This record gives sequence, C-alpha cells and structure tokens, in this order.
Amino acid sequence: MKKDLDNLMKANNLDALLFTGPAQHNAPMYYMTGGGHITGGDLIKKRGEEPVLFYNPMERDGAAATGLKTKNLAEYNYKKLLEAAGGDQLQAAALRYQQMFGDVGLTKGRVALYGQIDAGNAWGVFSALQALMPDLELVGEGPNSVLLEARATKDEAEIEHIRQMGKVTVGVVGKVADYLTSCAVNADEVLLREDGLPLTIGDVKSKINLWLAEGGVENPEGVIFAIGRSAGVPHNSGEAANVLRLGRTIIFDIFPCEAGGGYFYDFTRTWCLGYAPEDVQNLYDDVYSVYQQITSELKVDVFAPDLQKRTCELFEAQGHKTIRQDSTLQSGYVHGLGHGVGVDIHERPRYGYGSTEADRLAPGTVTAIEPGLYYPERGMGCRLENTFWVSPDGKIEPLVEYPLDLVLEMG
Amino acid sequence: MKKDLDNLMKANNLDALLFTGPAQHNAPMYYMTGGGHITGGDLIKKRGEEPVLFYNPMERDGAAATGLKTKNLAEYNYKKLLEAAGGDQLQAAALRYQQMFGDVGLTKGRVALYGQIDAGNAWGVFSALQALMPDLELVGEGPNSVLLEARATKDEAEIEHIRQMGKVTVGVVGKVADYLTSCAVNADEVLLREDGLPLTIGDVKSKINLWLAEGGVENPEGVIFAIGRSAGVPHNSGEAANVLRLGRTIIFDIFPCEAGGGYFYDFTRTWCLGYAPEDVQNLYDDVYSVYQQITSELKVDVFAPDLQKRTCELFEAQGHKTIRQDSTLQSGYVHGLGHGVGVDIHERPRYGYGSTEADRLAPGTVTAIEPGLYYPERGMGCRLENTFWVSPDGKIEPLVEYPLDLVLEMG
Repeated sequence: MKKDLDNLMKANNLDALLFTGPAQHNAPMYYMTGGGHITGGDLIKKRGEEPVLFYNPMERDGAAATGLKTKNLAEYNYKKLLEAAGGDQLQAAALRYQQMFGDVGLTKGRVALYGQIDAGNAWGVFSALQALMPDLELVGEGPNSVLLEARATKDEAEIEHIRQMGKVTVGVVGKVADYLTSCAVNADEVLLREDGLPLTIGDVKSKINLWLAEGGVENPEGVIFAIGRSAGVPHNSGEAANVLRLGRTIIFDIFPCEAGGGYFYDFTRTWCLGYAPEDVQNLYDDVYSVYQQITSELKVDVFAPDLQKRTCELFEAQGHKTIRQDSTLQSGYVHGLGHGVGVDIHERPRYGYGSTEADRLAPGTVTAIEPGLYYPERGMGCRLENTFWVSPDGKIEPLVEYPLDLVLEMG
Repeated sequence: MKKDLDNLMKANNLDALLFTGPAQHNAPMYYMTGGGHITGGDLIKKRGEEPVLFYNPMERDGAAATGLKTKNLAEYNYKKLLEAAGGDQLQAAALRYQQMFGDVGLTKGRVALYGQIDAGNAWGVFSALQALMPDLELVGEGPNSVLLEARATKDEAEIEHIRQMGKVTVGVVGKVADYLTSCAVNADEVLLREDGLPLTIGDVKSKINLWLAEGGVENPEGVIFAIGRSAGVPHNSGEAANVLRLGRTIIFDIFPCEAGGGYFYDFTRTWCLGYAPEDVQNLYDDVYSVYQQITSELKVDVFAPDLQKRTCELFEAQGHKTIRQDSTLQSGYVHGLGHGVGVDIHERPRYGYGSTEADRLAPGTVTAIEPGLYYPERGMGCRLENTFWVSPDGKIEPLVEYPLDLVLEMG
C-alpha cells in the first residue's frame, strides 16, 4: 500500500522516488496523483516526506486538484536553461532536474525512476543528469521496484475503485449475453443482425465499446472477443470479419479501466451459443474443474508461483501439456495462472519466472485467476477468469460475481 | 515520411533504431507496426534494411498481421537468461537484447532508442546493455530524433487516417451543437436536461464519449469542455459539476484517436449559447481576426516559430500581453500557435523554444493552428483550432471544415 512506501524505500536503501510523464494513462503517476488533466509533469517523493508535484503552468488547475504539494515548473525558466545547455533539450531537462532536486534538498543518495515516457528521452535525460550529479545514483529497479511492491496490496479506497470497475464490467458482459441470445439464427447456425446480415465479431466489439462508454469507462487495451481458431490463441483479440455461430467456443476477455487511465478490472468467460459440441464441453469441463479446485485452495499469503505449479499439476493429471514442461508450448496450458490487477492490468503478484518472496496473496492483494486450455489446431480454446481480492481478514473472493456457464441458451 | 528514415539515419550517423513496448497507445511502435494486439515486443530497424518485429509467442497472430518480418522472442529462452543473470530481470533483458542484436548482425555502431516504457526499466535495462556491448552506442536523441523528423511529414495513407479522424470529430462536434441548442432553458438561463435537471459539463462529456465510441474512436487524452473561468485556463478540461448557461464562453477542444491508439485529430471551437456578451464577443473577434490573418498567411516551408512570432505581434497590436514578453504569463496569449498532429497529439513541427531548422510547414506536414486568448480573472477564454495539411503541391487547408461561429442560436 502507498503507506508502505517509506518503509520499502528504507529497506531498499532509496532516498527518493522520481515520477515523470502525464497523470493519465501512466500508472506510476496516476497512482501518486489520482490522475487528472496533467499532460506532463514530475513528482518527487523523498523518504519520510510528502511528495511534491511539479506542473506546467497551463495545467495549474489539474495540479491543484490533486491536493498534493505543488511547484510551478515555469519557475525554472526553461528558455535560460536551454541557452545554458547550448540548445540541447536533453541537457536542459537534466539541468532543470538538478535544480528541482536541489530545491527539495536532494544532492546525493539513491533515486528510483518511474513513469511511462519515451525510452530515448529517458536514456538521454537521465544519462545527462547522472553526469551532472555524480553523487546522486539514479536507479532503475525493474520489476522488483518498491513502487510495484507497494502497489501489490490495495487499501480500501482502491478496492472500491476496482470493485466499481468490476460492476461496470459484468454489466456490459450481461448486455452482450442478452444481445447475443436474442439474435435470430439462420439455417447455417449463423447469428443475424437486426438487418438480417450475419453478425460479426466486429459488430459485437462495436457494441461492447459503446456499452463501456455508456458505463463511463475506457478500454485502452482493447477487448478479446474471439471465436473458433482465434479463441485457441490466448492473445488473439478476434477477427472483425468472423461471423458468430452456434456451438463454437467464444473467448470474451474484457479489461477496461477508469476514464483517464485509473484502476482496471479483468474478467473472462468462455461461451458456446445454443449448445456445446462434446469436445468443447470436455475442454470446458477440464478448465472449470481446475478453476474450482484452484480457487477453493486459495489461502492468504500463499506464494503465487506455487499456485501456478499446482495448476500445471492439475492440468497434467487431466492429460494436457503445460508450459512448465515446455516454455515454447502453444497447445495446452500455455500461460501463467494469473497476475495482480490495479492501475496496470498486469501487476504484482507474479506467478512465473522472476517472482520473489514478496509475490504472495497478502491481505490487500487483488489478483486475476485465469486458468485456460488452448488447442488452435482443433479450433478451440477455453479460459475462465475472475478478479479476486484478499480482504484484511484473509478471505479471498471475486470482487464481483457472474455465472461461469459455458452454454448460453438462445432466446 | 517513413521512407525518409534511412536517409535521416545516415545524416545522423545512426546504424539502427530500436523500438520497444506495446503496439497500441505507443506512438513509435504504432508508427512502425500499424498497431494491433501486441502488448509488448521489440522492433529493430537497421539502416537500409526492413525492420524485424520480435514478438511474444502468445501474440503471434497480432505480430503476423503487421505484415512485417518477425521473430519469436520465445527462441531466446528467457528462463535460461534469467539464470545466467543470477535472477536479475534487467540484466536478463539486456542479455536478450545482446542476442537479438547479434542475430540481426549488430555488434557495434549507434542505435537510437524509442517507445513508451517505464523510465526505470529503460534506465536499468539500457545501462546494463550498454555495459555488455561497449562497442554499441545507445543513443537518446530527444526531441530532435530522426523518428520525430520522419513522422513530421505524412504520406497519403497517413493523411487519409487523419482526415477520417477529422470527419468523426466534426460529426461528434455537430451532434454536441445540435444537442445543446435543442435544450430547454430556465429563467436563470441554465440549460436543462430531458429530466428537467440542470445540464452539467459532466453530462455533456458523457455524451461526447458515447458519440466518440459510436464513431469507433478512442479518447485517451480526454476532452476539454470548459465553461466560464475554466475556459480561461488553457488546459483546464472543465469541471464536471458546472452547469451550462447562456452567454458564457465554452471552450470545446476535442482530440480523439483511432481505436488502439493510432492517428489523432485536433479541433477547438469557442461557443456562446444563445448570445454573446459584448466583452466575450470582443475577445472572440480578436482571436478570430488573428486566426484568419495567420491562416491566410500560411505558406509552404514557412518556419513554424516565425508563425508564433507573427501571432504574438498580431495579439500585441490588439493590446494583449503575449508569452514572448513573459514566459510565465497566465493572462493574454499564453501558449504556442500550434503543433504537428499524427500518431501523437503533439508532434513536430514545433512552434517554440528548441525548434530546429526542420520545424517548417514542409509538404506532407499536418499541423494544428490554435490561437487563443485567456483571461481567467474575467471568467473567459477563447481558442479556435483547425488541423491543417500541407499538400504535396504546397496548398495548406484544414483537413475537414466546420463553422467557426461563436454564437450558437438556441433552437
């Protein structure tokens, strides 16, 4: 949680954190500022002190709305800095950071860097800054950053943001189910639109986007609504021209976020319209049984990679190949069991390679659990996913409920 | 244009370009790949050669759809690299880059870095890579990168993408105008919703987002729909609770992009509903006259900062203070005249500090022109903006047309 940042900084020998970039669609800055219309800025958090947001003067209202301590970047006279830098904008930016750090009393120590910005700008500016301030060590912590560790557990206010996104999500999912099951079907088992033309994946996605917009949320990562072979490839988001037919596996994976790029929710169902052929039903039954088994075994503070190991055991016992047997696997259980969900759609805890001792289902954790099986060569795939919350007293439950059923009876 | 990349690389002594991050909502990768469902990957373009896209195996369909030469990242055995790196994920990523560069025959020379990724990851991975490959110079070019210079001029296909976004944009703007002018108004000159409650900025923004979704586009940067004092602060996006009234300045700045984060369009109108008070009309007249003067003077290959200078002259002649007189100005003409528009909402040409000789309205340039005046202390602001295209034969015209009128007569 955010309140853990100072302790984590101490444990990791960090004196300050520097956040940069816009407040929207930039998870680290969103986390610190709460978002708002700030297209670019910087935030410095020294250990044991409140953060300071440095804003551009045109965005003073957005900066003020964050409620944070603020400082106007115009005070640094960029024009003069650019002259001092001989016209080199990266050097000018580094000179400004040097002054900003000086103003918050930071001339030495270790400073971790955060924020979605251009890789070349980051490399250019921070190389120049490191040369200007040799006593200050700029640190790229990578996936084990104190920020990602703090973010892995959520406080009550964050949980309400995520739960609210869950409510919007299942509301849209329900509308999609109602719409599909109300469609007419022709002799070839193809669903038909109101105008009698075949209903396509593209048509359904348009409706999903419309209903998400009605719910006041954004969908920056798109939606997976894939049928048949496409459903057999985990990250195939569906071919717009494919038509909807009865009896084919549809994977519907939806992961919207708050308007402005805040908290996400993650949710997947696998559907067959009208009926399920026997092989699809068997595939579903295998995934469903592993989903039920794993989610019934979830315990507070369990090590996330142990859950992945257990999932592989369960799928292997059913006769499926798994990714722990072959990291290049494309048929069978080919991905990780889950991931944390927060201001990024994928965050800690991690279930796979590179996990640390901290990747546990600690109280406050929000995690997607999404076992699945994929057989693209057989034109099918199946995944079931809910987003779970570990409550302060150690209960582990989906943040919102929705039926897991495979078959949606037609109208 | 993209076809200029090799020449620009040669002129800037670059042997290769490395792009990293997702294909969506990441302008450099979108530009090179055309977008699609690729949540993370790398693309290496050597000078004089076709680019190679490195993709994660789960996203092989998205990678194949780009039509680019591709390579599967699974071939690099991340697990083994992580062991070799002693569990250090940044070092493992650097080792993988070293192998990838080796596979495309790149062991020395200068490589520029691009892509929206986490600043700490960029700093960590590229510091490690630079140490592993001392003969390879990693370059952060900053705002004068060859990529941004290539992107400043658009080919015909890109123009059609942007024009299409313009059509969707003015379609939504027209719907907003029709809706507002159709509202009932109470005795206090407050617009009313269908249910009789006062119409708020929040209500209007919901409708805008819905109509944008209907148009199949995204709105990742939000929309500015601000009334009264809020309209006097350029980047104030509007207070949701403010009610719509007759006779107040409304700034409506809308800048959606293609679904998945492709090309943008930028458009602003200033409206008064029903009537304009004299001071608002005077403010508008000043902005309108500068807009007409500047856009009538646009000439192919003109140096963009000269247009900013000319705009300041025109506003100063009207008695307004301008940002060239005071870089911290908050009342008067407080920002730049425009900016290029493409896969980023703000790109080259630049109209202000740090511009280079290349910041010209060359054929193929797409640029927003947006003069404005702001008087927050008087509760008003005014900005007019269209997105212009410099055609191959040097004609400069807005990509789509829409009336510039201040007053919208109530229906």
